Amino acid sequence: MSTLSLDPSLAPAATLPDSEDLEARKRRNASLDPLFFPRSVAVVGASRSRGTIGGEIFHNLISDGFPGPVYPVNPTAIAVQSVRASASVREIPGPVDLAIIVVPRDKVLDAVDDCHEKGVKGLVVISAGFKETGPSGKKVEDQLVERVRRYGMRMVGPNCMGLLNTDPRVKLNATFAPTWPPSGNVAFSSQSGALGLAILDYARELGIGISTFVSMGNKADVSGNDLLEYWEADPATRVILLYLESLGNPVRFMQIARRVGRTKPIVVVKSGRTEAGARAASSHTGAMAGTDVAVEALLHQAGVIRTDTIEELFDTALILANQPAPKGNRVAILTNAGGPGIMASDACESRGLKLPSLSASTDQSLRSFLPPEASTRNPVDMIASASATSYEKALRLLLEDEAVDSVIVLFVPPIVTEAADVAFAIRRAASGASKPVITCFMGTHGIPEALSSLREGKFPSYSFPEAAAIALSHAVRYGRWRGRPEEGQVSVSGAAPGRARATLLARGAGGREGRWLNTDEVRQILGAFGISMPVAVFAQGVEEAASASEAIGFPVAVKLASRTIVHKTDVGGVILGIAEADGVRNAVRSIEERLEHLGKRADMDGVIVQQMVPRGVETFVGVTQVPHFGKLIGFGIGGVNVEIWNDVVFRVHPLTRSDAEEMVEKIRGAKLLRGFRGAPSADREALVDTILRISALVEALPELQELDINPLVARPPGEGVIAVDARIRVAGDSV
Amino acid sequence: MSTLSLDPSLAPAATLPDSEDLEARKRRNASLDPLFFPRSVAVVGASRSRGTIGGEIFHNLISDGFPGPVYPVNPTAIAVQSVRASASVREIPGPVDLAIIVVPRDKVLDAVDDCHEKGVKGLVVISAGFKETGPSGKKVEDQLVERVRRYGMRMVGPNCMGLLNTDPRVKLNATFAPTWPPSGNVAFSSQSGALGLAILDYARELGIGISTFVSMGNKADVSGNDLLEYWEADPATRVILLYLESLGNPVRFMQIARRVGRTKPIVVVKSGRTEAGARAASSHTGAMAGTDVAVEALLHQAGVIRTDTIEELFDTALILANQPAPKGNRVAILTNAGGPGIMASDACESRGLKLPSLSASTDQSLRSFLPPEASTRNPVDMIASASATSYEKALRLLLEDEAVDSVIVLFVPPIVTEAADVAFAIRRAASGASKPVITCFMGTHGIPEALSSLREGKFPSYSFPEAAAIALSHAVRYGRWRGRPEEGQVSVSGAAPGRARATLLARGAGGREGRWLNTDEVRQILGAFGISMPVAVFAQGVEEAASASEAIGFPVAVKLASRTIVHKTDVGGVILGIAEADGVRNAVRSIEERLEHLGKRADMDGVIVQQMVPRGVETFVGVTQVPHFGKLIGFGIGGVNVEIWNDVVFRVHPLTRSDAEEMVEKIRGAKLLRGFRGAPSADREALVDTILRISALVEALPELQELDINPLVARPPGEGVIAVDARIRVAGDSV
Repeated sequence: MSTLSLDPSLAPAATLPDSEDLEARKRRNASLDPLFFPRSVAVVGASRSRGTIGGEIFHNLISDGFPGPVYPVNPTAIAVQSVRASASVREIPGPVDLAIIVVPRDKVLDAVDDCHEKGVKGLVVISAGFKETGPSGKKVEDQLVERVRRYGMRMVGPNCMGLLNTDPRVKLNATFAPTWPPSGNVAFSSQSGALGLAILDYARELGIGISTFVSMGNKADVSGNDLLEYWEADPATRVILLYLESLGNPVRFMQIARRVGRTKPIVVVKSGRTEAGARAASSHTGAMAGTDVAVEALLHQAGVIRTDTIEELFDTALILANQPAPKGNRVAILTNAGGPGIMASDACESRGLKLPSLSASTDQSLRSFLPPEASTRNPVDMIASASATSYEKALRLLLEDEAVDSVIVLFVPPIVTEAADVAFAIRRAASGASKPVITCFMGTHGIPEALSSLREGKFPSYSFPEAAAIALSHAVRYGRWRGRPEEGQVSVSGAAPGRARATLLARGAGGREGRWLNTDEVRQILGAFGISMPVAVFAQGVEEAASASEAIGFPVAVKLASRTIVHKTDVGGVILGIAEADGVRNAVRSIEERLEHLGKRADMDGVIVQQMVPRGVETFVGVTQVPHFGKLIGFGIGGVNVEIWNDVVFRVHPLTRSDAEEMVEKIRGAKLLRGFRGAPSADREALVDTILRISALVEALPELQELDINPLVARPPGEGVIAVDARIRVAGDSV
Repeated sequence: MSTLSLDPSLAPAATLPDSEDLEARKRRNASLDPLFFPRSVAVVGASRSRGTIGGEIFHNLISDGFPGPVYPVNPTAIAVQSVRASASVREIPGPVDLAIIVVPRDKVLDAVDDCHEKGVKGLVVISAGFKETGPSGKKVEDQLVERVRRYGMRMVGPNCMGLLNTDPRVKLNATFAPTWPPSGNVAFSSQSGALGLAILDYARELGIGISTFVSMGNKADVSGNDLLEYWEADPATRVILLYLESLGNPVRFMQIARRVGRTKPIVVVKSGRTEAGARAASSHTGAMAGTDVAVEALLHQAGVIRTDTIEELFDTALILANQPAPKGNRVAILTNAGGPGIMASDACESRGLKLPSLSASTDQSLRSFLPPEASTRNPVDMIASASATSYEKALRLLLEDEAVDSVIVLFVPPIVTEAADVAFAIRRAASGASKPVITCFMGTHGIPEALSSLREGKFPSYSFPEAAAIALSHAVRYGRWRGRPEEGQVSVSGAAPGRARATLLARGAGGREGRWLNTDEVRQILGAFGISMPVAVFAQGVEEAASASEAIGFPVAVKLASRTIVHKTDVGGVILGIAEADGVRNAVRSIEERLEHLGKRADMDGVIVQQMVPRGVETFVGVTQVPHFGKLIGFGIGGVNVEIWNDVVFRVHPLTRSDAEEMVEKIRGAKLLRGFRGAPSADREALVDTILRISALVEALPELQELDINPLVARPPGEGVIAVDARIRVAGDSV
């Protein structure tokens, strides 16, 4: 089985799986090979005492079947765990591909120098005391990275718990995990080392086979993105699991994950969901979009499956690693007990899966062998008397039914039927099926044997029906994402970025905080991207406003013009539906008086006299900047509804057409866009177009920091949209 | 230990726990004693073959230590499993308290007759083929119940899987569960028998001690409500778990659960949450599935903890059965690894728990012994080097901190510290604390020993931090509910139910479907309960409307009056803000023309000319009838918002003041009531009062089927509310 050559003159690539084709090899991040396929390993800081990190890692490396030599490095010992030790890496009597470094922080740099002299190309730095401890540790880490780069090495860590490759040709366990996980097709990387090892143990319990495990630690050199690219081309890996606490480079992550996800599902637990201390935000959009909203949007757009818990992560891995992707969301449930059937139905529907009616012929065939008390509707309840043969027959019928995309098989052990027999029946009926079959055997009496049979047949089994339904729903959503054609960013017609840029160049200095553009600038910039605002004229004083209104034609609205007052309605600064010039005069006076009263008279630049907008559905489009993420674009039902109902869908810029369409479809208030209670429906095509224009605007104007269009009034289909009120903040001149 | 007397002349009550006081015994449903504390048991249909139901139940009864005689009844065998058999219950050579019936359905009635002759007082009918199979089975079940009642017996089942009492003085296992659960203080009842037994096995795995288990089956005699009352007074039971597929008598359930919950928490999984689940429920038990909104409201009002899954049910039972109830929602997290700490924080915050800042003195004391890299903020991350002693010290400090109501302790096994040592340290620090402490030991290596130590100390341990946080959040909500004073239904001042009744008596016949009351009737009925509507006059024709408007004073609204057209805005039947009589004439004509156009001219009774309503927040109050549940009352933000955002909180009638207050507080749009963005706030006291008046109205008029007040305009505080539009449907005369 093993074709691993121990001849040190062979290149590392010679140890790679034979099945890897040239194309894949080219794409694979070959610089990581010394980490995963070394021919020899040194443990710098290997300890004679078991129960220490340096002792356990060395023990694991020599006990778990690594076929090349493992060299302990220890300046004070002749032998470590009965293996001749060297005082330094330089003194090792043979070439070394990979070094595991377990010495105290202040000895790490010297050890790296030694490794370089020895020609080591891969490092795993277990040692802690770096960036995670503060500025002085950060400094040492910077030096470490500088050396690693200069020496042309790749490094995992520091402050990590090692890595592990179950490939039978290397059997590399450079962790202190006490147990060796079963070999399989699931790659797993954890940002929390301690958690990672605990989780590895859990994976073993569940029987999830691992291809590679990496504890990333501080990610000073090898990042999650590097690993994604490595696993993309790794023939031993089918599913990629990540436990993340932060995203180092979110935009790059999105690009890579989007590509990798096309061939291999990525499942992520990202902690820090409810991050406290949301940053102070001055705009609607900013207030609604915390970091987690950005993470959620980014993972969604990249086709990454996000789970809430570690349990869900592995439950989802079980189905993705073992079963075909479901073609759709229609599930059949087969059970021998009503209660679990109901629980599974509940869980399916609450997760967006459908329980279709079965075809008449399926129903008829089921009736032909099931007792009259059985229910042949979906869920199919064969009742407690169901035999293994009934399971086999019924499952075959369900898999053949064209209304069904996947099947959940439930079994509660009654007295009469053996769990193992049912497990074998499921294997017989479902082997080779193109639809996924997952199972839930409730109660553990006599089950382990049955489960191992299912496991060999690659049919996942869950303890409770809810877990099965949740895992399946993730697989369905992933299948749907992967089924969509790949798209790039859309170019919009009639945009004139140059004009918008000219407007920005003409503006005054913004200062460090940036500044809100005035109404004219906003109008010009939106106009340059084909987003129109109602005819409006800036006026100062009562008479100028009155004559402006006569030029525009009635009815008009009068709105406060101010660069400092953001929420104009709050200060009585918006008066609508004025039918004559005297009304305009009164309106201007009333705004002035109101501001006087509030002590804000000086903030009034003048008023905008604006054409009254035709009726339509009030929507909202906004842009906000999230640190490290770039820009987020949000769409929702507008007016005050935005803040009351928080009905906004966010996506990370840049957007594809599907992203924009999804934003318009996914808001909770979408029924308002479809013509609610006799009201006209909205021009959804124009909304999608406008969202894409905003994405183009974001692309063209990197200094844009915040944008709100609220309301963006959507007229009936074919009549377009109009941005009634909008504001834009741009970065200061230093940006 | 055992004080069970086998002298048949003693009454069953003599076998009851000595610690039970007289008061409790009086309240306890003593008629169930023969089921739980029999002195002797007959198994009718006991089988010689193991692996059959009748064989397994008999085997369990004689193997698990029941101290009295167990008699097999089998007409064709001399002995069953080496015990002398009788051909009929009548021939048993001694008195029999409890009979387990496992014969085919058509022999059940005869067996019950025999039991009666023998003086049996408790029956457990395992046999199936009754109501669950359709009308003919239902008929036999009715006969069975009639006989059981006539004979003064109590019966569990039919179509059930038995019952079990772990009390050391009876050790009664009348199920075919293959394993005997550990004895403990958790009572559990399941409506699905098969599921119940599988779950018992799961409870055993988790180490949850069971007091009593009952598989309820068809609940033909002993119901969930009976069991609640029994367990209320059962000194062996501290927590009650229910798996329910239907609620037989929801209103009674609410009354009983509300009372029982004051002393013993009730935790429920109620399946049939979603549409598909409900369908399966109706075909499974023949029970009508309740609307889930009603179930949710009812359980909430009764203080019952509802969990989504069986796992959550037991996770919650673990804390309730073993730890004191938390006084509040402030949680401290203690960990030796950052990742799990973040995950626990996320889970806590997303479930409404708070992570308070620790007091300065706690912080200082923690710093005195933790390394500088540790974080002494909440979560307290002692980092991987934390020893068992650090855990003990830190946990003591957290428990003493007045800002903390409960503590979650997380442990990820590093190399240096033994899980068992940490477990013992937790026990030492937390024993006798008045605040709950729960734990999560991640990874299983070396954990089982540690867990058993925690288990003995009654400290729950969960596999993952999320499960710990979810269980704790349920305990916190229960604690809060139990901390509220008990309340009855509120009486409202100035209600004149007699006047409302007179209005109803004067109405015409409603027919089978009932009918919508006309506008005058609605006004009179609401008025009788102190809910006022704007001045309004019914008018027919253009001129009558015009003169009505002059009498009311402008501005006015003109609204279609129709007993058949429900959504008046949909047909253009509402015209607002009319400033003069000619406008009223135009409005009436326009409504007439519009209906003409729709072919609905005949549905127009006339128009209502109505005083324009002062501005305020538009809310909504409604009543609906849910089969088997009685009336549900809903409150939310009104206007079209009701249908777009579905922002309505429902409660089951009758309401307490807290219920009404909670309805007003809990809606998502509550910020609109608090004066949003400079708008005046709403008279919330008047809203609460109006909701209570509606509850009084529902109480007084049982024939009411539906009621909608939308909008109910809430004026600023002190100015009350006004019902701008309302409709009421009442049952037909036959009701």
